[in-house]
Amino acid sequence: MEKINNFLFSGKSCGLKKNNDLDVGLMFSEIPLSVSAVFTRNKVKAAPVIISKKNSKNIIRALIVNSGNANACNGKYGIADAKKVMEAVSAETGAAAGNIFICSTGVIGERLNVPLIERAVPELVKTADKNGFSDFAKSIKTTDTFTKTASADVTLDGNKYRIIGTAKGSGMIMPNMATMLAFIFSDIPLKKETADEMFKNCVEESFNSITVDGDTSTNDTAAFFYPDASGSSEKGVKKIFSLKKTDADYKKIKNALLKVCLELAEMIVKDGEGATKFIRITVMNAHTESGAKKTALTVANSPLFKTMITGEDLNWGRIMAAVGRSPVRLEPEKIDIYINDKLIVQNSSVYKGLSKADEKTVLSPKEIDFKIDLKCGKKKWTVLTCNLTKEYIDINASYRS
Amino acid sequence: MEKINNFLFSGKSCGLKKNNDLDVGLMFSEIPLSVSAVFTRNKVKAAPVIISKKNSKNIIRALIVNSGNANACNGKYGIADAKKVMEAVSAETGAAAGNIFICSTGVIGERLNVPLIERAVPELVKTADKNGFSDFAKSIKTTDTFTKTASADVTLDGNKYRIIGTAKGSGMIMPNMATMLAFIFSDIPLKKETADEMFKNCVEESFNSITVDGDTSTNDTAAFFYPDASGSSEKGVKKIFSLKKTDADYKKIKNALLKVCLELAEMIVKDGEGATKFIRITVMNAHTESGAKKTALTVANSPLFKTMITGEDLNWGRIMAAVGRSPVRLEPEKIDIYINDKLIVQNSSVYKGLSKADEKTVLSPKEIDFKIDLKCGKKKWTVLTCNLTKEYIDINASYRS
Repeated sequence: MEKINNFLFSGKSCGLKKNNDLDVGLMFSEIPLSVSAVFTRNKVKAAPVIISKKNSKNIIRALIVNSGNANACNGKYGIADAKKVMEAVSAETGAAAGNIFICSTGVIGERLNVPLIERAVPELVKTADKNGFSDFAKSIKTTDTFTKTASADVTLDGNKYRIIGTAKGSGMIMPNMATMLAFIFSDIPLKKETADEMFKNCVEESFNSITVDGDTSTNDTAAFFYPDASGSSEKGVKKIFSLKKTDADYKKIKNALLKVCLELAEMIVKDGEGATKFIRITVMNAHTESGAKKTALTVANSPLFKTMITGEDLNWGRIMAAVGRSPVRLEPEKIDIYINDKLIVQNSSVYKGLSKADEKTVLSPKEIDFKIDLKCGKKKWTVLTCNLTKEYIDINASYRS
Repeated sequence: MEKINNFLFSGKSCGLKKNNDLDVGLMFSEIPLSVSAVFTRNKVKAAPVIISKKNSKNIIRALIVNSGNANACNGKYGIADAKKVMEAVSAETGAAAGNIFICSTGVIGERLNVPLIERAVPELVKTADKNGFSDFAKSIKTTDTFTKTASADVTLDGNKYRIIGTAKGSGMIMPNMATMLAFIFSDIPLKKETADEMFKNCVEESFNSITVDGDTSTNDTAAFFYPDASGSSEKGVKKIFSLKKTDADYKKIKNALLKVCLELAEMIVKDGEGATKFIRITVMNAHTESGAKKTALTVANSPLFKTMITGEDLNWGRIMAAVGRSPVRLEPEKIDIYINDKLIVQNSSVYKGLSKADEKTVLSPKEIDFKIDLKCGKKKWTVLTCNLTKEYIDINASYRS
């Protein structure tokens, strides 16, 4: 069971989802927290995104999340409804509205059934405890088929600290975020500016490097909560970690945080709607990291690439076509492609030594690793994705019903 | 039967495709032609694209096309193989290699079986005649389920002229072109510079405004052939149409050419792999035409939008999410959406007057028209697309086998 000092969690079913599935979750902190958060870059933002973006500058005491309804595209009602939910949390916890972080995920454009949540809040607060993380993690799921959690330990100055996290996918997953909520909690006190930059970099390498279907939602939020180390907190913290990027402790914390982010990101891709294959695409020896990333994402989002994986049919020309249309500098005659470390394409043509057996079986494994070598620079980037199956269509042709 | 003065056509089965399907086509002209052509912007270009791009500056006498093999990603063999095909055409027709336009479509990365085509060329040339257009049109198909042709008449100075065209889709269809070949032929003599601009504009509004799956191929070519009016031709032409954009005759010709392009583009979308619905998306009142086009394409390529259409489930939040992530200036609270002229979303929220009956049936028709009103400018653009079904996955998971 994942648990962490001073963080209390709970999760309940309030009736937003069917079948008594958990659909509302709470985190309450015994000490003042700071939050570093990354939000959707979609210009159409859900009400809770607008509110939490504002509140992320403040001390945070509570996090309230619901699944089953995105509270997006509800006009003036969206903000008003979110505020009512926050008032209910305030009334029960004593945390001011400005110290609450709120998130929603689910169907867009339907009004949030606030009374259902209001009725659940007292129970959520009453039952919140150190062992409630699993219920909290369950309560944020939508079409996810399994609950996603990860953790890491960090020892600093002989003291043991912990980072735990949970995330939900699993369609509409694409950088700049997705219908993705990711919440990460740590008992490491950090200076907000230090943590902001550290978390942003971790998100870039993890949640912003995965794609299921290229869609970006109105609600995406990744947030990292940790003890406030500003000195303005009510309770003191053992030590203020005001670290530089070059410090060994900074690297320790960043590596642990990245590990949690990457594990959650991998789980999201593995649980991609209808997915049966896990795909890692590394574009290497590009001129820039951003070029490598764009090319990897272009391949990862190509329906023809994704269906080729489903059919296990080595139609590698589709990779070449996707690479060629991606916005990156390249030399069209020089591209090499490796699949699970086997050379398949050499200088943009089929590798002469490719055996019939390899051609038949190279796409059989459940996890497939693609390396696309542009041979024109020194930068690389890795993107995670999954295949496109008929089940994706089944799931998404009838999501609301 | 589509026919046109001085243009001779034929189509044969040479064995590149299975089941004796026609797979190689020829156009031979009794008079010197000019060609205005638009090629794939994919940086990975098939050999015939490289050759035809060069030859498009010259007088054209013949067009040779094969389906079943794209002759792309074959390294140095690609150009050499294409040249052998052209030599065979030269030997039979007398047209110099520089006066031949060549195209291929099909699987990428497998060498072209040149002897099969070489063997077919004499018969292709021998049987080419004014009634061969239908066979030619059949020979360029790949996964197309029907042959696509269109035509228009134009009267200029009392003389009747004709424009006829054919195109093939039907996956990997996305602007900047697709695995799309489109050939348009006319007996209207035109100055090349005039026709180049006219055709480019027509392509922008037609073939570059359709999308099936967002993929762009290595072979896409749209070419418009017409009697050379440079004065350097062997045979004279009745009149050199050196027209200005403002001339009534220019508009007549452009309208007829656009009509043919649009009809072919619509057919490509209607024949999109696995498609069961035809979708028209107009983004209106945007700041720029290019912004309107980008937004319309973002919606059109969203798998969540495409599967919503398949499920006939009015989950309009997915349209809002796609609009919001598209690279366009907009005011997120002001968006209206009409479906088949019914107001569905008003100021980015559900329209209060939407009836239960409309919500249930508005996505039932086979042809669905979306209007997305950004209400922040005066420009608009229309994009055509289709839905995403399980059949798309069936077709593309096993394309080669």
